[in-house]
Amino acid sequence: MDCFSINGGKNMAFTFQINNDVVWNHDEKLLAKAERNTPKLIQTTIQPAAIAEIIADEKSVNGFKSVVSEKNIAQLPDYTLGRDEKIALDLGDHYVGKFTIDIDSVGSPMDAPLYLRLKFAEVPAEIVAEAADYDGWLSRSWIQEEFVHLDVLPTTLEMPRRYSCRYIELSVIDTSPKWKASFSNPIFMAESSVSMEQLPKPVIEDKELEAIYTISVKTLQDCMQTVFEDGPKRDRRLWIGDLRLQALANYATFDDLALTKRCMYLFGGMTTEEGKIPANVFTEPNLTPDDTFLFDYSLFFATILFDYVQHTQDETVLQDLYPAAKKGMDLALRQVDEAGRLVLTEDWPVFIDWSNDFDKATAGQAVIIYAMKRFIQLAEKMQDSQVKHYQALCQQLEEFARTTLYDAEKKQFVIEGSGEVNVASQVWMVLAEVMDAKTNQEIMETTIKEQFPITGFGTPYMYHHVVEALFVAGLPEAAVQLMKDYWGKMISMGADTFWEAFKPEDLDFSPYGSPIISSYCHAWSCTPAYLIKKYLAG
Amino acid sequence: MDCFSINGGKNMAFTFQINNDVVWNHDEKLLAKAERNTPKLIQTTIQPAAIAEIIADEKSVNGFKSVVSEKNIAQLPDYTLGRDEKIALDLGDHYVGKFTIDIDSVGSPMDAPLYLRLKFAEVPAEIVAEAADYDGWLSRSWIQEEFVHLDVLPTTLEMPRRYSCRYIELSVIDTSPKWKASFSNPIFMAESSVSMEQLPKPVIEDKELEAIYTISVKTLQDCMQTVFEDGPKRDRRLWIGDLRLQALANYATFDDLALTKRCMYLFGGMTTEEGKIPANVFTEPNLTPDDTFLFDYSLFFATILFDYVQHTQDETVLQDLYPAAKKGMDLALRQVDEAGRLVLTEDWPVFIDWSNDFDKATAGQAVIIYAMKRFIQLAEKMQDSQVKHYQALCQQLEEFARTTLYDAEKKQFVIEGSGEVNVASQVWMVLAEVMDAKTNQEIMETTIKEQFPITGFGTPYMYHHVVEALFVAGLPEAAVQLMKDYWGKMISMGADTFWEAFKPEDLDFSPYGSPIISSYCHAWSCTPAYLIKKYLAG
Repeated sequence: MDCFSINGGKNMAFTFQINNDVVWNHDEKLLAKAERNTPKLIQTTIQPAAIAEIIADEKSVNGFKSVVSEKNIAQLPDYTLGRDEKIALDLGDHYVGKFTIDIDSVGSPMDAPLYLRLKFAEVPAEIVAEAADYDGWLSRSWIQEEFVHLDVLPTTLEMPRRYSCRYIELSVIDTSPKWKASFSNPIFMAESSVSMEQLPKPVIEDKELEAIYTISVKTLQDCMQTVFEDGPKRDRRLWIGDLRLQALANYATFDDLALTKRCMYLFGGMTTEEGKIPANVFTEPNLTPDDTFLFDYSLFFATILFDYVQHTQDETVLQDLYPAAKKGMDLALRQVDEAGRLVLTEDWPVFIDWSNDFDKATAGQAVIIYAMKRFIQLAEKMQDSQVKHYQALCQQLEEFARTTLYDAEKKQFVIEGSGEVNVASQVWMVLAEVMDAKTNQEIMETTIKEQFPITGFGTPYMYHHVVEALFVAGLPEAAVQLMKDYWGKMISMGADTFWEAFKPEDLDFSPYGSPIISSYCHAWSCTPAYLIKKYLAG
Repeated sequence: MDCFSINGGKNMAFTFQINNDVVWNHDEKLLAKAERNTPKLIQTTIQPAAIAEIIADEKSVNGFKSVVSEKNIAQLPDYTLGRDEKIALDLGDHYVGKFTIDIDSVGSPMDAPLYLRLKFAEVPAEIVAEAADYDGWLSRSWIQEEFVHLDVLPTTLEMPRRYSCRYIELSVIDTSPKWKASFSNPIFMAESSVSMEQLPKPVIEDKELEAIYTISVKTLQDCMQTVFEDGPKRDRRLWIGDLRLQALANYATFDDLALTKRCMYLFGGMTTEEGKIPANVFTEPNLTPDDTFLFDYSLFFATILFDYVQHTQDETVLQDLYPAAKKGMDLALRQVDEAGRLVLTEDWPVFIDWSNDFDKATAGQAVIIYAMKRFIQLAEKMQDSQVKHYQALCQQLEEFARTTLYDAEKKQFVIEGSGEVNVASQVWMVLAEVMDAKTNQEIMETTIKEQFPITGFGTPYMYHHVVEALFVAGLPEAAVQLMKDYWGKMISMGADTFWEAFKPEDLDFSPYGSPIISSYCHAWSCTPAYLIKKYLAG
């Protein structure tokens, strides 16, 4: 998850809330457990594999690709740079971490500082893009570009910040006419809470799926830092919607339980006084919840806990976090009217997808059913005296969906009143398993027939739910085909990790107007690793 | 001294040499003495005096001046800044040192890095100037502008580099729409090898001269670091031509003998194998001579030693450094032909002034006479067996000047062959006291009548020599008037310290096309402190 805007910023307010009158509860016991589970990051030394030449290529992401230069990386120190000269290093794959490089002056004594610009790029187009051209509402501060003066050479330049990148451009703004800068020993110290070495290579016969799986795992790894980050380039933060998908992919791969636990305790330990769970939290300089609330994201706290307990049978975690899940669920249920209808309000919107071009009411109704079904299983484990109460409410929600929101003739869920049919409604109702298996299959078959190829969604987050709904509805071929059409297409365009945003029907699409702000390694796009393992393995 | 270019760069090659085949002698004994005399810098905590508003003003330097803002510096933290917002701090005077400031975020949690630009400006016009517009040949790396990403607030931003400035602009490139940056506790830690506190306030009745004296001393102080720098903004380096004038001003004021000694030993300890003294030296990362040679600058090593010994009677320094002075003098004398004519060559040009619009042969002849007369006094003190040899050569040089270069009818020195009359010839021949006192006075009176107001020179370096020649020629009123017309004019235009370059006849003149590269605190402009003390005190 992240907050972004398309179509001139009309969605900005949607995920970009300012609520400065919130009263927060900090449960220090839970937060202490969160902190105890902070991972020690694993560091891996990466040396650039090549010098890169970035060239225009309309088939590649944002119109540029990288080719190996005729210049030999082993001779890097020989390619001295003066004013306005530059060189790009290619790490060979996408990494997250810190950069150091040795720099010397060559020629007459160094009679002026070295002024150097460094660009760190996830995709080649970011090297070409000009920071000055970016004028979107998302902060320009995310652009991975630094300007550095070095008064004395030789030196080892140790960049203090962390970057998410494959390409590093060194651009000399100036030396002096009397000397040039020479670069050597570039090192990228990659960081993650997990290592590829702990992961057995899976046997996947379909080479395209194997590639999708591999890149999904790499995407997940690079997002696994001291929290599950949404994107290591931007905004480097724990969002609950991303966490849910990352945790599922993690169970299917690295299985780093401490990190998952840490993230659950962070949310459980920082809720509003009334019990609302924030959409995301910050961990620096202090543990701080964000003042952004999304209805579906709040509900996912219960489903994340359910997934964890189901995977680990960890009773302590359940005991610790059930109260927050229950309080959050009780608060959400206040939005349900007597007829069993979820009534969404502006101050607590449902996310579903960044697009606001479709009505989300039916999908929202499905999400609360999906969450309740999982929460009720936790309540049963906890021997909660209110289990029956929750079961009754859930039945009422489902009943309302079946009777009022389902059009049996169309075999599609609709929006009450308008009759609008959209993909999100079908997908979430199928995931919530409101109808029987046969009807679910019919719903998804109808969706394929009438709505495919999908348009209007721009994120792997929504595509993930479509694919999983196809699996749930017993349509694995269609699910695989969609994975190939979507994630496979990203690979054909040069993806080393999967992207925050991608529209197969509009390859030039960028939610921010410039690739330098987009995240090309984004948590919510890592789910093929989970989907392949769960629905296709064995 | 510094190397710069006007009129489209035609002078660039002149002071901007590359000589990469030079064999250097490092005299470790002398260099050890240089290092032992490295000063411990005195630090002074400066808090900004005001928030500055920079406004257009055609009477001020480069067309801008600073006025005190309606915003109160005591309320700085209240003036929070978001995207594209900025504020300028006014230190109240020019200083050299390091900057720190506390920064916090105000509003929702900090959901993006802070991206900040800092400009450090000696004069208000530098704040207004755009770095991107600068396209001169001098390195862009001198522009005092930094870009900083801060990932976590609150923090104390400690800028690691040293700046030379009075104004500091904080410009927020971006925060995010959810929060702003708040600044507090700005501190400028000023550095110099000397303190104003060690200097008694002089009694100068003429208020204009007093102001010129005061600003000269401030200029000198800010250039006194671990060496006598030419300019603390640019290029922060020990040039021998500047050292000569700084040392004279220093004897008249702070009298920091250790720093002077250090600088003399640096030059004495790093000469070419044949004995040539470099025009400037570097001290970081190692003691390194520059591969630039100027004929007059090399000769000044002997005159600097003469001035020091005359001021201190320090026999040890004389014993240590006389051999280098002698070797340098012997090498220079090889350029003198049998007639007593100095024959300059392209690979060892004479500087005199940055302008190449006049013939420098006669001025060069005068400089070697000026230097020899002082060197001979050192030779006498050293009981050098070759004293008579030097005296004979000096007489020959003078004789040639008097007979071939002086036009008794015009009462002016000329260029041999062309008959060109220029100010520099007169000034240096008077300083060298080639003619008797009465003739010197006539020469300078003629110069005033025919050449004043002076045009074509752009630096206080040349103006210093004109003023001193007027004093030497017994024309103190004219000397004082020129000081007021030149240094006084800088004050009227807003000078806090005196500038590297200034043309009273062309107030828009900038040698680099942009004020962001010019040095507004430059060693060779500090000499009124010396001139006033030597020729006017008591």
